[in-house]
Amino acid sequence: MIGILGGGQLGRMLSLAASRLGMRTHIFCPDAGSPAFEVTPHRTIAAYDDEAALAGFADAVDVITYEFENVPAATAAFLASRKPLRPGPDALAISQDRLAEKSFLVSKNIPVAPHRAVTSLMDLDAAIDALGLPAVLKTTRLGYDGKGQSVLRDRAEAAGAFAALSPKPLVLEAFVPFDTEISVVVARNAAGEVRAYDAAENVHRHHILHTSTVPAKISPGLEKHAAMLAKVIVVALDYVGVLGVEFFVVPGERPSLMVNEIAPRVHNSGHWTEAVCLTDQFEQHIRAIAGWPLGDPTRLADVVMENLIGEGVLNVPGGLDRDTRPHLYGKTDARPGRKMGHLNRIVRP
Amino acid sequence: MIGILGGGQLGRMLSLAASRLGMRTHIFCPDAGSPAFEVTPHRTIAAYDDEAALAGFADAVDVITYEFENVPAATAAFLASRKPLRPGPDALAISQDRLAEKSFLVSKNIPVAPHRAVTSLMDLDAAIDALGLPAVLKTTRLGYDGKGQSVLRDRAEAAGAFAALSPKPLVLEAFVPFDTEISVVVARNAAGEVRAYDAAENVHRHHILHTSTVPAKISPGLEKHAAMLAKVIVVALDYVGVLGVEFFVVPGERPSLMVNEIAPRVHNSGHWTEAVCLTDQFEQHIRAIAGWPLGDPTRLADVVMENLIGEGVLNVPGGLDRDTRPHLYGKTDARPGRKMGHLNRIVRP
Repeated sequence: MIGILGGGQLGRMLSLAASRLGMRTHIFCPDAGSPAFEVTPHRTIAAYDDEAALAGFADAVDVITYEFENVPAATAAFLASRKPLRPGPDALAISQDRLAEKSFLVSKNIPVAPHRAVTSLMDLDAAIDALGLPAVLKTTRLGYDGKGQSVLRDRAEAAGAFAALSPKPLVLEAFVPFDTEISVVVARNAAGEVRAYDAAENVHRHHILHTSTVPAKISPGLEKHAAMLAKVIVVALDYVGVLGVEFFVVPGERPSLMVNEIAPRVHNSGHWTEAVCLTDQFEQHIRAIAGWPLGDPTRLADVVMENLIGEGVLNVPGGLDRDTRPHLYGKTDARPGRKMGHLNRIVRP
Repeated sequence: MIGILGGGQLGRMLSLAASRLGMRTHIFCPDAGSPAFEVTPHRTIAAYDDEAALAGFADAVDVITYEFENVPAATAAFLASRKPLRPGPDALAISQDRLAEKSFLVSKNIPVAPHRAVTSLMDLDAAIDALGLPAVLKTTRLGYDGKGQSVLRDRAEAAGAFAALSPKPLVLEAFVPFDTEISVVVARNAAGEVRAYDAAENVHRHHILHTSTVPAKISPGLEKHAAMLAKVIVVALDYVGVLGVEFFVVPGERPSLMVNEIAPRVHNSGHWTEAVCLTDQFEQHIRAIAGWPLGDPTRLADVVMENLIGEGVLNVPGGLDRDTRPHLYGKTDARPGRKMGHLNRIVRP
């Protein structure tokens, strides 16, 4: 019995993958209308700080994982004291905090964008002096899909942006003139096996992932380097599970990579694996946390994954192209900006 | 909301496929320990002749399907009067009865093994005169996995076999000296679209399917012919859903095909589609019964599907070959002869 914190589409897809391996799943989520509740009879509807509910959940399962990196530290610690929590609390703590994450990466000689911690307007002023403009001011915690950040183009915008962003502290990141964003989904299990999927090239719209295309249009050398860096990260974290690593590809005579961020979970830019890999990222995560050997991440075809955002879902099934495999999340309310499903389109040679 | 009669592995895999399309499923099964109950919160545990339970089930769903062809006719009629039952009661009635099935096929000029109805020992004697020995005596109803049949090699065995087999009537089938057995999984939706998967070559052990290999080692002409016959069957039945057709390949200067049997449901010999097709047979069935366009059945790689029978499941995950994708059904009791899961092994060029 796999315990999953979070009842969104990632939890749902993890549950479906666990079911294919003959396992049962128990979903813990405060929201009774969560899509993951539709794919298993085992559920807890409770707040993430409800210790009685957490204790009952831990008793009911063999191992615990999560679909989102903002699991409260106290919740993670409480659960980890009762049952194996995979990935562990340390990976969670690092990826919850942009500054801690960047410090960790820098300590492993993994390139990240130049940045400065910002706890006051005075810090921000000094950071702008050091990094120049434009630059991006971000919260260190709880940011996602473009939320919790603001691009500064002019020093006059600094005070307003500082006031608007919370929680503090913030971080100012130098603007990286990148060509493309790529990502690598990598897995490590408790026995130390490590496998990476091919890199995907990501395009965002309105700060939300729009498409992931595989293979990415980068050199074989750069792709190999990205996979290597992703592997270094999971080994350094003593990580168990699937982890997503987003990179900027910085142009130059020899293009280089910078890590934008890491996510201690299955990743939207890895949804393409479902259509063309023998083992998809969801099954790979379940294998890793359940103590199985890792599966084969080999890719059988070229593919483009496209997110269905808001009412985009209404084009399914009517507007589907040939060679396209849809995955819908069973959400009933197609609000603007909401991830409703995704499509995988095979690209034939 | 898709209603599914039957809570075994086929119902479970249909439910998982429906979930990938954003649909919900409700499982109806008398056995509280059914594996399909683990993949949805919506269930009815009741006998198939419990009209109150059937009515409640029909009220709760939008369309009803089934995972096994032995749904009682009264149950099918009761449900079909309340909600769309797909495939319909006619297809069910024909496939429940070997004699009706063969008569239907013969009426459509589809070749089947020579056979005679047997309601008495006198019939059996005359049938042996007509068809010769060896021959196979079978029940017309409720047979599966080699149950409900007996090979007659000698006239002296006739009376004993006749007495042992029930329910009556029986059917005597001429022994077909076939090379191989192949099967075709075909789908038709309410709009009349028809798509067939590539033929699989099947090997049985102890009367239970052991492996399905794709492509089958038959000529392209014969494969095309098999697909055509399968399509003729679903059109003739005005069928909605996925149907499995088993053929004998009869040797000769020009090898020919005979239909062994048809199954009005997803088929064990189509489990390979899960690993190498953009749309697998389970999703194809859900698409068909839900009024969606059919998906693309194109195959991306060669594959061998192997059933995990009884304790064979204990080799997972430890004994898995590279390139192998397992699917386990979540059954806890690995009884001899019980289908516990299957493996799909990709065959690389």
